[in-house]
Amino acid sequence: MKRLKTGTEGLDELLTGGIPERRNVLISGTCGTGKTILAAQFLRQGVQDNEPGLMISFEQDEEKLIEDLLTIGVDVPALQKTGKFRLIGGPIGTVRRVQTRTKAKKDDILKEIERVVNELEAKRVVLDSINLFLMLFESEAEKREALAELVSLLAKQGCTTMLSCEIEEGSKKISHYGFEEFVADGVIVLYRIAFENMFERAIAVIKMRGIEHSKAIRAAKITKEGLKVYPDQEPYHK
Amino acid sequence: MKRLKTGTEGLDELLTGGIPERRNVLISGTCGTGKTILAAQFLRQGVQDNEPGLMISFEQDEEKLIEDLLTIGVDVPALQKTGKFRLIGGPIGTVRRVQTRTKAKKDDILKEIERVVNELEAKRVVLDSINLFLMLFESEAEKREALAELVSLLAKQGCTTMLSCEIEEGSKKISHYGFEEFVADGVIVLYRIAFENMFERAIAVIKMRGIEHSKAIRAAKITKEGLKVYPDQEPYHK
Amino acid sequence: MKRLKTGTEGLDELLTGGIPERRNVLISGTCGTGKTILAAQFLRQGVQDNEPGLMISFEQDEEKLIEDLLTIGVDVPALQKTGKFRLIGGPIGTVRRVQTRTKAKKDDILKEIERVVNELEAKRVVLDSINLFLMLFESEAEKREALAELVSLLAKQGCTTMLSCEIEEGSKKISHYGFEEFVADGVIVLYRIAFENMFERAIAVIKMRGIEHSKAIRAAKITKEGLKVYPDQEPYHK
Amino acid sequence: MKRLKTGTEGLDELLTGGIPERRNVLISGTCGTGKTILAAQFLRQGVQDNEPGLMISFEQDEEKLIEDLLTIGVDVPALQKTGKFRLIGGPIGTVRRVQTRTKAKKDDILKEIERVVNELEAKRVVLDSINLFLMLFESEAEKREALAELVSLLAKQGCTTMLSCEIEEGSKKISHYGFEEFVADGVIVLYRIAFENMFERAIAVIKMRGIEHSKAIRAAKITKEGLKVYPDQEPYHK
Amino acid sequence: MKRLKTGTEGLDELLTGGIPERRNVLISGTCGTGKTILAAQFLRQGVQDNEPGLMISFEQDEEKLIEDLLTIGVDVPALQKTGKFRLIGGPIGTVRRVQTRTKAKKDDILKEIERVVNELEAKRVVLDSINLFLMLFESEAEKREALAELVSLLAKQGCTTMLSCEIEEGSKKISHYGFEEFVADGVIVLYRIAFENMFERAIAVIKMRGIEHSKAIRAAKITKEGLKVYPDQEPYHK
Amino acid sequence: MKRLKTGTEGLDELLTGGIPERRNVLISGTCGTGKTILAAQFLRQGVQDNEPGLMISFEQDEEKLIEDLLTIGVDVPALQKTGKFRLIGGPIGTVRRVQTRTKAKKDDILKEIERVVNELEAKRVVLDSINLFLMLFESEAEKREALAELVSLLAKQGCTTMLSCEIEEGSKKISHYGFEEFVADGVIVLYRIAFENMFERAIAVIKMRGIEHSKAIRAAKITKEGLKVYPDQEPYHK
Repeated sequence: MKRLKTGTEGLDELLTGGIPERRNVLISGTCGTGKTILAAQFLRQGVQDNEPGLMISFEQDEEKLIEDLLTIGVDVPALQKTGKFRLIGGPIGTVRRVQTRTKAKKDDILKEIERVVNELEAKRVVLDSINLFLMLFESEAEKREALAELVSLLAKQGCTTMLSCEIEEGSKKISHYGFEEFVADGVIVLYRIAFENMFERAIAVIKMRGIEHSKAIRAAKITKEGLKVYPDQEPYHK
Repeated sequence: MKRLKTGTEGLDELLTGGIPERRNVLISGTCGTGKTILAAQFLRQGVQDNEPGLMISFEQDEEKLIEDLLTIGVDVPALQKTGKFRLIGGPIGTVRRVQTRTKAKKDDILKEIERVVNELEAKRVVLDSINLFLMLFESEAEKREALAELVSLLAKQGCTTMLSCEIEEGSKKISHYGFEEFVADGVIVLYRIAFENMFERAIAVIKMRGIEHSKAIRAAKITKEGLKVYPDQEPYHK
Repeated sequence: MKRLKTGTEGLDELLTGGIPERRNVLISGTCGTGKTILAAQFLRQGVQDNEPGLMISFEQDEEKLIEDLLTIGVDVPALQKTGKFRLIGGPIGTVRRVQTRTKAKKDDILKEIERVVNELEAKRVVLDSINLFLMLFESEAEKREALAELVSLLAKQGCTTMLSCEIEEGSKKISHYGFEEFVADGVIVLYRIAFENMFERAIAVIKMRGIEHSKAIRAAKITKEGLKVYPDQEPYHK
Repeated sequence: MKRLKTGTEGLDELLTGGIPERRNVLISGTCGTGKTILAAQFLRQGVQDNEPGLMISFEQDEEKLIEDLLTIGVDVPALQKTGKFRLIGGPIGTVRRVQTRTKAKKDDILKEIERVVNELEAKRVVLDSINLFLMLFESEAEKREALAELVSLLAKQGCTTMLSCEIEEGSKKISHYGFEEFVADGVIVLYRIAFENMFERAIAVIKMRGIEHSKAIRAAKITKEGLKVYPDQEPYHK
Repeated sequence: MKRLKTGTEGLDELLTGGIPERRNVLISGTCGTGKTILAAQFLRQGVQDNEPGLMISFEQDEEKLIEDLLTIGVDVPALQKTGKFRLIGGPIGTVRRVQTRTKAKKDDILKEIERVVNELEAKRVVLDSINLFLMLFESEAEKREALAELVSLLAKQGCTTMLSCEIEEGSKKISHYGFEEFVADGVIVLYRIAFENMFERAIAVIKMRGIEHSKAIRAAKITKEGLKVYPDQEPYHK
Repeated sequence: MKRLKTGTEGLDELLTGGIPERRNVLISGTCGTGKTILAAQFLRQGVQDNEPGLMISFEQDEEKLIEDLLTIGVDVPALQKTGKFRLIGGPIGTVRRVQTRTKAKKDDILKEIERVVNELEAKRVVLDSINLFLMLFESEAEKREALAELVSLLAKQGCTTMLSCEIEEGSKKISHYGFEEFVADGVIVLYRIAFENMFERAIAVIKMRGIEHSKAIRAAKITKEGLKVYPDQEPYHK
């Protein structure tokens, strides 16, 4: 099984070599734990490795996203100029209103994603965030279906996918609706742990179908150079 | 009471010899604990023991399932060639839409399963996952009925059954809806336990009607050779 | 107040002599703790003591129930041959559908139970499980009413009753809906307690109107000879 | 403020002399903690003290209630013969159905209670249980209103009242709906506490408007002589 | 900012001099912690300080309220005779039914309160309890609005206000609906804390806009002389 | 990335220099932790730094707000006289009723805010509180959309924004609805921590996109001089 480098220092080591090709991985964490950074570094690595990448964002403000990524060392305009990176999406509100009219939400969105993936010959895809995507559908069954079809479609197109997933502070779950981890091929969790009046960052690979991976919870840091994982370091000692 | 070997090293020891014939067992666990692996190893053992096996999967992507199982040493195409293994199902979405029209969900699904079991002369059946199956029905009473009829039907056909059951991370339950364990003849729980910054795997037989079984929580591992149970080893020491 | 022997070794000691006559007892516990075994042993004891017993089961599969009870030493066909034991009921689904048409659920069921009790001259009754019985009614008030009328009817017929009650794993309650224990005359709870990587069995009499009883939580075991209580033994030591 | 003896040995000491006249007290506890016993002993004391007492019970089976009370030393028929004790009520189901027709539930019930109180010249009233009474009303506001009117009516008639209140096992509340304790003048809680594999009984006066009372949690016992409180004894020592 | 003496011994010390004028304070606590006592002592102090006070009570039984307050040393009839104290309100049921007809609940109640405040030239107001007042409105938004308008109206009339707030036993909240503390200018919490088989009373000023206040949790007592705070004493020592 | 001084002593140090320009920050905390104070000090600093500030308040009572701020040293009328500070808004009830009629809530509010921001040439905006703003919208999706559009609009106008967020006492969340922290660029949490019978104040920067920040939980105080942060001091020692 071919592996894709994650572009996050130290993480490939926990994954014994990277993300398996054509698989999708849930990147779960509470706010400010670095989910989008990890995902963006994944696409930047793709540009380096000649694996074109698509970022599907439902955030309101594209400009701000680009500015933020620059501060941790991911230069989106530079990536775009290579022709191997594209950013699509737009506010959830726009998507929601359009779709409510056409009554064909899921199929429309999936077709549009498929079209861009083909055009770009994308090998890597990031969906930021899966919470906003799933908010477009009503029942749990519809949400589960939409997610399953999306990841299946991307696998068929040969893409390896990261899905960022927002976890409410104080929750013990590793996804918002509680089923996303079962649909995903892999789950990486980013933690913020309060220990002796400090918030420590940590990361763990919870699940990664098809490969062996570390079972450790390891220290992580976010600096100007982005998110970095310390595969030999515990996040704290009691 | 005849026993069927589980095909998972070390597990038969916890079960004092295997799963009782014609019974059904819930395989419960959070994501990435090896439920599907355990179930697939059960069917592979069946091929070796001349007990044909049927895998009913509601997952979106059959290809990926086959690929995953190969990485832990279960070669589905090879099993299929023996004529003693069959994989049926398809995405939950397909089933749901068809059934909504016909208004005869449960009976249709059960008849189709019965037909294939007879054709294959199946002795072993895996339902992966029971969560997706039960999502097809509305009220708790309907879900409970559907599950009871399914396991009864399979018992009448002489099948021994494993039902994989997804547990939400952080939950203390051993099933999704809270009643599945009462309908099942047996319950095996797969655990992921955070201990000193490591995730340890463990397994326990919670219930197995008709036989005596170990009451211990024991260590487990997932490697390239699949899931293995260590019947004499505790998952961690405090 | 006359007492009935429970037929479970060690339990009569906790009850200072057995269950008071004409009373009903809730047998509560999570899955696999031995509720049905305890109830069946109660009816077997009745056959020995010339107190005919009726088992009302809403389980799907009568055959499997009979087979299971045999493995812990309760021979249902042999009991039936004595003419002092009867097993009635059938799947909850059947009952539910019939009753929905007639619009007289509760009265129909109670009349049928009364008829069989009279025919058999039953002195002991087991309802397995009360969860399935209560699922036939809508609101909490209707459920409570139905349960109160059932146990009152049985008391008037001179019957002593056991009602098995399924508790969801991880719950701190001693009944499913939270009111059953107030309608019942007695409550016996069966426990599965995780202690040092082992699941220990335990039992306690929580309530038994009309008699003095032990207030201890005591060790229990399920073997080929059935459920046995150790009235002088704690389930574990810290 | 005149006090009424509770009739429960040791309890008057915690209350520095008994229940204040014309007040109402919530007797809260999980199943089997002795709520009905405490209430019945209160009425028996009334007979001795020439304060006629009325027991309003919504339980299904009056006969069984009488039998139970006899086993802990409260002889209801003997009390009835004195002409200073009356038992009214009947199953909640009966009340509920009648009332649904007349559309005047609350007023009807209150008038009937007032009539009997006057006839008997009752000085003490027991409502067993308040849960069943409140189940007759829909919204929280209606329930609260009904309870407030009931206790106000009884106070105006010069009655001192005990209201038994069922608490679900495992709950941290001291009433079922969470507002009853605010309507009541006093709250006495009966506990069952698991300590070193034994269930210990305990009692505490949580609130008693108009008087000073003990703030201690004290040991209690239920024997053939009924419920007894040990005002100088802690329920357990760590 | 002018301060009003609370009339509760020791409390002014925690407040560095009393309640700021024209502000409102939530007095929160579970049942029997002395909320009404604290509020009544506040109005009695007002009579002494020539600041007329209005008590708005939605309780069923005015007579009983007066009797209770007398037992802790607050003589309502004597206060009324001074012409500087008034008690209005009446059962919530009455208010609710009238208002449902007129469809102008909030405005009617507020106008009536304004009228009495003006007539009495009230400087202090007590609302006992805010739970019953808010029960008159449907949605959270309506409740929040009603509360905000009420406290604003009273501030404009120059009144300083106490709002008693019932907290359900076992809850970690400091108000019933969870928003009252944000609308209030101040929050004082009364505690009952179980410690070594005794219930200890305690008090803390959680918030008081406009002034500095103690951040300590301090011991309190209720005796025949009413509620007393011990500003230098911890409620218990571990 | 340009930074704006927060105006709260010690906080800029935790932020390594202040809030990034054109970003929005959630100021979360339970009642009385100083959210409004922190936000007001932010606007006062703006007046000093020639960055005009707009405070949007949905509170009922503007006068009281002004009075409160004065007590902690923020003189609103003085700020208003500089022409670089404006306070708009009004009670939530007013807004809610108007908007329900016009059916164009969000757009109307956003346009009005945009107009004032332009008029004032505001560089800093405070929304106090976001809870009241979001209460104007129905579903989670609508709330999320409204918040995303608001912060996007303000960023486009060149404003740096603080959004105060009320957290219910006892909750482990850092926002009311659980999604606000994901829409915000930054999150600062204000704590009240009970430790040895004292409430200690603390603060932590949970997230701040675009910059590096302290990961420490640090001591804070509210005095007549307002809110002050102690960047080198832990809130308590065990």
